[in-house]
Amino acid sequence: MSAPVYKRVALIGLGLIASSMFWAMKRAGLSGEVTGYARSSETRETARRIGLCDRVCDSAAEAVEGADLVVLCVPVGAMSTVMEDISAALMPGATVSDVGSVKRHVIEAVSPHIPEGVHFVPAHPLAGTEHSGPEAGFAELFDNRWSLLVPVEGTEPVAVDRLRRLWEGMGANVDEMDADHHDLVLAVTSHAPHLIAYTMVGVADDLRRVTDSEVIKYSAAGFRDFTRIAASDPTMWRDVFLTNKDATLEILGRFTEELFALQRAIRTGDGEHLHQYFTRTRAIRRGIIEAGQDTDAPDFGRTKT
Amino acid sequence: MSAPVYKRVALIGLGLIASSMFWAMKRAGLSGEVTGYARSSETRETARRIGLCDRVCDSAAEAVEGADLVVLCVPVGAMSTVMEDISAALMPGATVSDVGSVKRHVIEAVSPHIPEGVHFVPAHPLAGTEHSGPEAGFAELFDNRWSLLVPVEGTEPVAVDRLRRLWEGMGANVDEMDADHHDLVLAVTSHAPHLIAYTMVGVADDLRRVTDSEVIKYSAAGFRDFTRIAASDPTMWRDVFLTNKDATLEILGRFTEELFALQRAIRTGDGEHLHQYFTRTRAIRRGIIEAGQDTDAPDFGRTKT
Repeated sequence: MSAPVYKRVALIGLGLIASSMFWAMKRAGLSGEVTGYARSSETRETARRIGLCDRVCDSAAEAVEGADLVVLCVPVGAMSTVMEDISAALMPGATVSDVGSVKRHVIEAVSPHIPEGVHFVPAHPLAGTEHSGPEAGFAELFDNRWSLLVPVEGTEPVAVDRLRRLWEGMGANVDEMDADHHDLVLAVTSHAPHLIAYTMVGVADDLRRVTDSEVIKYSAAGFRDFTRIAASDPTMWRDVFLTNKDATLEILGRFTEELFALQRAIRTGDGEHLHQYFTRTRAIRRGIIEAGQDTDAPDFGRTKT
Repeated sequence: MSAPVYKRVALIGLGLIASSMFWAMKRAGLSGEVTGYARSSETRETARRIGLCDRVCDSAAEAVEGADLVVLCVPVGAMSTVMEDISAALMPGATVSDVGSVKRHVIEAVSPHIPEGVHFVPAHPLAGTEHSGPEAGFAELFDNRWSLLVPVEGTEPVAVDRLRRLWEGMGANVDEMDADHHDLVLAVTSHAPHLIAYTMVGVADDLRRVTDSEVIKYSAAGFRDFTRIAASDPTMWRDVFLTNKDATLEILGRFTEELFALQRAIRTGDGEHLHQYFTRTRAIRRGIIEAGQDTDAPDFGRTKT
């Protein structure tokens, strides 16, 4: 156990990320107390039942009282409303952070509500699963994953360092980058891939000439990988696309361009182009495995069903 | 152990599928003897070293001599050349089958070389991993996966039934369908998803404003799932796209149409459209899990790296 990094952490929103943070903080003793709040009374009841948070509060303002770290774990589109609720209750010297997948929009939505004397350090842990809700979290989620800190201009370095220690204590590697670059990098590594997976799954569901039961039975030939990503939380992802519009559309434009080039190669029978392309993409996979960011076990070492 | 279904099975081509077939046949005692042949002497040597096949032959013709089942396990584009090599050596009453991912083209390429008195029963096991080569195979690959038999007109039912027993003995579920429907179903569940994954990985690799090392480090946010599929064997996949051109291009056309509709929803801020779409795709995932075709474990129960 490390020494606690914060005396009291308040988690606003109790889904997959907040619940994983709670268990990861407990595992390493990173906070004296962890309070929690969720808008839905059903989620709060679930949290109480499974021991998620030391104290579950019935209002966001109550949860943040006396907290030296407040983490906004709600969909990106809800950040500003939450800030309206808690702004007056924030303790002087406290830090507000978040775990949103988009950073420029969150900064614009949250910054105006940050009182004088309160720090704001936006963050984004690159970790998750296709499951959501308070029961989906587990302590190991962030182990060896990256958490990106996106400090705004003028943030005191001491507040950033403290948050870094928290994330490292939860098992993550930490990098810093600016908001616009973050949003572009994530459009490539996360947002565009998610939209593409959603699209492919939607298309399969939509075909009249191939039945749903065929799509499901024969999904192990590649398709099922897409369905995992396309099972991610709809509200969270709606907000991501609406708030990282420009970067996502830019990458999707590049994607379409490339897809058309490959379609043309198929149509004209240009096997050499296809073979070269597929050889190059194979190398990226090796890079990811060597960087410890995925398993080399065949099929992800997938549990047999 | 079941009774052997064939006296001698010849595997032509010794990659992931052939090697998994060998181990699966051994596990259940499905063939008296299994011979094997690969074009590359390096592959033959590897096979001999790891005990893959009871007998590794230095020519395809030698491998098929006296075999009552010959399975073509080479890329789809190589089937016709292989048939030229073995046609004269096929035993009367023998069955020729294959494991190609495309069926109409294979039927057209192989049928003209099938001698009088030899059966031809095309097949396609919907199983695989991103690894390839003789050392990638394992006995459990086909367990609870589907293997599709695509008998051509006039095939004797007894030859089809016998091949069905072999696949069931190797752990697979077996369905029959006609070649054109097979090629369409697979375009949806396999070929289009693979091309899309290849494209997305290629785009990420190609961006000048996001470095390769960023793409790799931050890949756990969704992108890395695509890289597994995009690490599949380049030669095999080149041949799939060139030989299932029409169905693949049709599905890609539908995909592009749908992608444009979602892009427009993002651009115009139509959150309702996005949310509905993402909710629908989530249901397909549940169908696949209920059908036993994927694990419900978060992140595929991925081995932690």
